[in-house]
Amino acid sequence: MRQQLVELRAAMKKHGVDYCLVPSNDFHGSEYLSSHFKARKWVSGFTGSAGTLLVSKDWAGLWTDGRYFLQAADQLEGTGIDLQKMGEPGVPTLNAYLEQHLQKGQVLAFDGRVVSTRQAEGLGKLAEKCGASIACEDDLVGEIWTDRPALSAEPAFELAADVVGKSRAEKLMDLRAALAKEGADAVVIASLMDVCWLMNLRGADVACTPVMLSFAAVTADEAVLFVNPAVLSDEIKRNLANDGVTIRAYEDVYAFVRGLHAGSKVMMNLNVVNSKLNACVPAGVEVIDKVSPTNLPKACKNEKEVDNFRIAHIKDGAAVTKFMRWVKTNVGKIDMDEISVAEKLAAFRQEQPGYIGPSFEPIMGYGPHGAIVHYSATEESCAKLEAKSFLLSDTGAHFIEGSTDITRTFALGELTDDEKKFYTLVLKGNLQLGNAQWKAGCTGANLDYLAREPLWRLEADYNHGTGHGVGYILSVHEGPQSIHWGRGSATPLEVGMITSNEPGFYLEGAFGVRLENLTAVKEVATNGYGRFLRFETLTMVPFDLDAIIPELLGEECRGILNAYHLKVRQTLAPYMTAEENAWLAEATRAI
Amino acid sequence: MRQQLVELRAAMKKHGVDYCLVPSNDFHGSEYLSSHFKARKWVSGFTGSAGTLLVSKDWAGLWTDGRYFLQAADQLEGTGIDLQKMGEPGVPTLNAYLEQHLQKGQVLAFDGRVVSTRQAEGLGKLAEKCGASIACEDDLVGEIWTDRPALSAEPAFELAADVVGKSRAEKLMDLRAALAKEGADAVVIASLMDVCWLMNLRGADVACTPVMLSFAAVTADEAVLFVNPAVLSDEIKRNLANDGVTIRAYEDVYAFVRGLHAGSKVMMNLNVVNSKLNACVPAGVEVIDKVSPTNLPKACKNEKEVDNFRIAHIKDGAAVTKFMRWVKTNVGKIDMDEISVAEKLAAFRQEQPGYIGPSFEPIMGYGPHGAIVHYSATEESCAKLEAKSFLLSDTGAHFIEGSTDITRTFALGELTDDEKKFYTLVLKGNLQLGNAQWKAGCTGANLDYLAREPLWRLEADYNHGTGHGVGYILSVHEGPQSIHWGRGSATPLEVGMITSNEPGFYLEGAFGVRLENLTAVKEVATNGYGRFLRFETLTMVPFDLDAIIPELLGEECRGILNAYHLKVRQTLAPYMTAEENAWLAEATRAI
Repeated sequence: MRQQLVELRAAMKKHGVDYCLVPSNDFHGSEYLSSHFKARKWVSGFTGSAGTLLVSKDWAGLWTDGRYFLQAADQLEGTGIDLQKMGEPGVPTLNAYLEQHLQKGQVLAFDGRVVSTRQAEGLGKLAEKCGASIACEDDLVGEIWTDRPALSAEPAFELAADVVGKSRAEKLMDLRAALAKEGADAVVIASLMDVCWLMNLRGADVACTPVMLSFAAVTADEAVLFVNPAVLSDEIKRNLANDGVTIRAYEDVYAFVRGLHAGSKVMMNLNVVNSKLNACVPAGVEVIDKVSPTNLPKACKNEKEVDNFRIAHIKDGAAVTKFMRWVKTNVGKIDMDEISVAEKLAAFRQEQPGYIGPSFEPIMGYGPHGAIVHYSATEESCAKLEAKSFLLSDTGAHFIEGSTDITRTFALGELTDDEKKFYTLVLKGNLQLGNAQWKAGCTGANLDYLAREPLWRLEADYNHGTGHGVGYILSVHEGPQSIHWGRGSATPLEVGMITSNEPGFYLEGAFGVRLENLTAVKEVATNGYGRFLRFETLTMVPFDLDAIIPELLGEECRGILNAYHLKVRQTLAPYMTAEENAWLAEATRAI
Repeated sequence: MRQQLVELRAAMKKHGVDYCLVPSNDFHGSEYLSSHFKARKWVSGFTGSAGTLLVSKDWAGLWTDGRYFLQAADQLEGTGIDLQKMGEPGVPTLNAYLEQHLQKGQVLAFDGRVVSTRQAEGLGKLAEKCGASIACEDDLVGEIWTDRPALSAEPAFELAADVVGKSRAEKLMDLRAALAKEGADAVVIASLMDVCWLMNLRGADVACTPVMLSFAAVTADEAVLFVNPAVLSDEIKRNLANDGVTIRAYEDVYAFVRGLHAGSKVMMNLNVVNSKLNACVPAGVEVIDKVSPTNLPKACKNEKEVDNFRIAHIKDGAAVTKFMRWVKTNVGKIDMDEISVAEKLAAFRQEQPGYIGPSFEPIMGYGPHGAIVHYSATEESCAKLEAKSFLLSDTGAHFIEGSTDITRTFALGELTDDEKKFYTLVLKGNLQLGNAQWKAGCTGANLDYLAREPLWRLEADYNHGTGHGVGYILSVHEGPQSIHWGRGSATPLEVGMITSNEPGFYLEGAFGVRLENLTAVKEVATNGYGRFLRFETLTMVPFDLDAIIPELLGEECRGILNAYHLKVRQTLAPYMTAEENAWLAEATRAI
């Protein structure tokens, strides 16, 4: 039994709480969390990015999704916490479980600041149905977590308008126009990425996501940034003031919302705004529950941003290609393991000018570890690399010109027939999707077939989405667009959206293949039939020809691959040594 | 100015009506209408299957969709009725037009029996917003239409359980189970196709749709068929009685609904149930507004039905192939025009045993007429066929084993480069879609890209859906599934669904290409990755090799085409003369 669980139960008893919910969240609905907020990890020991813990007097369960089934089973062993595999037959959802178990008069507790308004409303209704009640004032984990890290307060930095293509003043003007159109008097923005995008600021308060802990509120004549002022330099403060942005303390957002005038309308995304902040809305204020108008312009990068993204991907491509060569030529000759090669890749990236840091925790999985979709090597799990099978490398970086997210699967030596077959099929899916051309209005759901077709034809599949949006030095998992046949968002793919293209295949206990490029949507023509769009592949790294069965790839996809490899070779050449270029020429030869 | 319009305005004046709405509908929300119901056609002169007429004192407009823009413009010329092209920029929807023009105190009239509850509710709200009111008691067109045809009362016929794979008693049992699951005490079914499917009966009251004018109501212990008893033979009456089905007069459905007990729950699809029938629901009766539970089992044909469909398609394929040969070998030698060749094709079909009649009005468009998507040749428009360009033939039939809907575009002689190019691209789309294999859960929206991709790549498109469901000796346009990237229904494609695959390309004033097969969904495998489905092509007619550019079709699609042609040749051979078989061998040679 894990000690933290024992202590939490003691705190629950003291507070008269029957069920305690510990989600993976901060005050902003962020995907990645700064260390202060990793309460679920601290209590359960499960390190995955997604998961919700529910603790009662005599039972505890952790709900997580398919990406983490193997990892969670491993990490939860002996903790006294049951793994609840979301989406598997016979496994109730968290809400279904609560509905079944909550008894009349019982109390379900959670910290209202780390549960969204939407989810809290759902839990409230559920409790009511069971005759139970909700307690969301106290932070039970906070009471027992004696060495909890403080709230992060790292220095912020500013992106100049000529770097990101649009000034803060212009963004504020657009936002105010959107508010007027919606009839809203104010917007309160809780998404850290939206606040930072709007303010042309970045920070370092969250691992892998260069944002600062902050809220923003904008009205027709006021723009307020709620942030620890210690993170802002005097120059930034001056620039903000020049654009009419007032700085207030991070915690002041609650008071700001309490001060909204009766009769006014405030726009807030209740899927993001935490339930404590929503509870501050005074009677008589109407909430317009919509995604912030910053969301779509943030997703649709302007021309300057796309230009920058291209530069970032050349730098990143050079680093990853050097790494690919280094691993493939040295494996079996010098000692390598999953952690050491991840460090080697980070070192190649650090050599590039404008490097900021990793955009997510690297996934470096050798052999069977490649089949664990969100694998993260630990000292215990870390595998030695041998001159055979696959290394799956899913990593990314932030550069001052934009963010990257790339997966390559490398042959480290001899491969099995299955490894080659599935590598080729996954590559075929990637090339087919990357080569799509469609009519404006299509969503990722209309295109996902292209990525999955080679596997579906063999009655196989992969258990994750094919594509997600990527932010500009923000989160590498950004909406609103996505690529999935079934749970794809309803947002059409539009010009300037940066989206990943990452089909995969995973054979538990054997190997995994994932091949991921980032793409930018561009317009090819507008005529009487409509507006036609396609992807431009930004990622500049070869696919491993050692793993491809040319006949299985087919003529058309071979043509697409050869054209891509030619472009990679020409683009990267100036950044490589003569020795590396010789290797690259061979690695990108036409097949 | 059209005389009928003058008379309608006189009737409107008499009734104090400012706007009169004349939709294309019967009492059942049917797509095809028996002649009694063709009020919109009678008033406006526009013969297309879809369109709504709005008449005021000094203006009249007809709203119709892209299929009919050319035809409607032609037929409305000189009538005093403005064509309102739905979906075109600057064209208001009918409701938007009304909202803009309805003045305070004005009256908008329509016959409540030919407007669905849903639409009537929308119009009521709209009128209220304008301070106007609704009058739906009177049938204004009926008052002036002196030679209006009587309600049809053609003899019905019965389909034996061993023919259609499921008895009426079983269907009633399933329906009652579905009602119990929904907590409904009764269902009132207004869709003629659903009534006939449930009762294993067919009729001849509607052109091209072998249904009888009828309603059905089912409770836990009662099943009522509301129909003119004159259409039922004594044997059918006995069989119905044996299965516990009571027969009541067609008009009695209104009294039945008025007699529902307070406190009970009735399921009715308010998109179909007409507003007069809905107005009969007594206070205290709860309406469960859902599609009838007969809808999905009707769409998912059982094995016996699919087997029968295969037989129908062999018969139909033989007829259409004989026709194809006859046209292509005789054009330029004997006189042919659009109407005469349509009659020739009907004659070939009539030779087949079990032929019932056409499943829709034939579209036989030569040259530029092929570009009119729902073209119907009239004496005036009827074009002579010459030994060049394309004949587009979109026709279908009901056989006792099922229904067909097939489009082939035939080269009648020399073709232009564009004609060949677009024929090949449309064929490529058809073959790509027909060859799809997908994971269960996918809808037509996930697959439509395959059909459109060859055109989208050239920044071209077609302005209609790619696929619709097809009923079993019912309507050839059946839901709930469909294939369209944007307006595709949310219903997954499931085993037994019969769906058309009909991409096209239309160059106004020049030519049209459409290539349509019917398909059945079948399961190929179920394993740990899911359940995998694909299409079986039912249609058995060659594509015209004279119109194909083999290199443009590509290797993969040539393979699919050759395999299909081999199957067509082998399947049809027993039904063809020696001379026809010699021609068929050449027409289906591998390319």
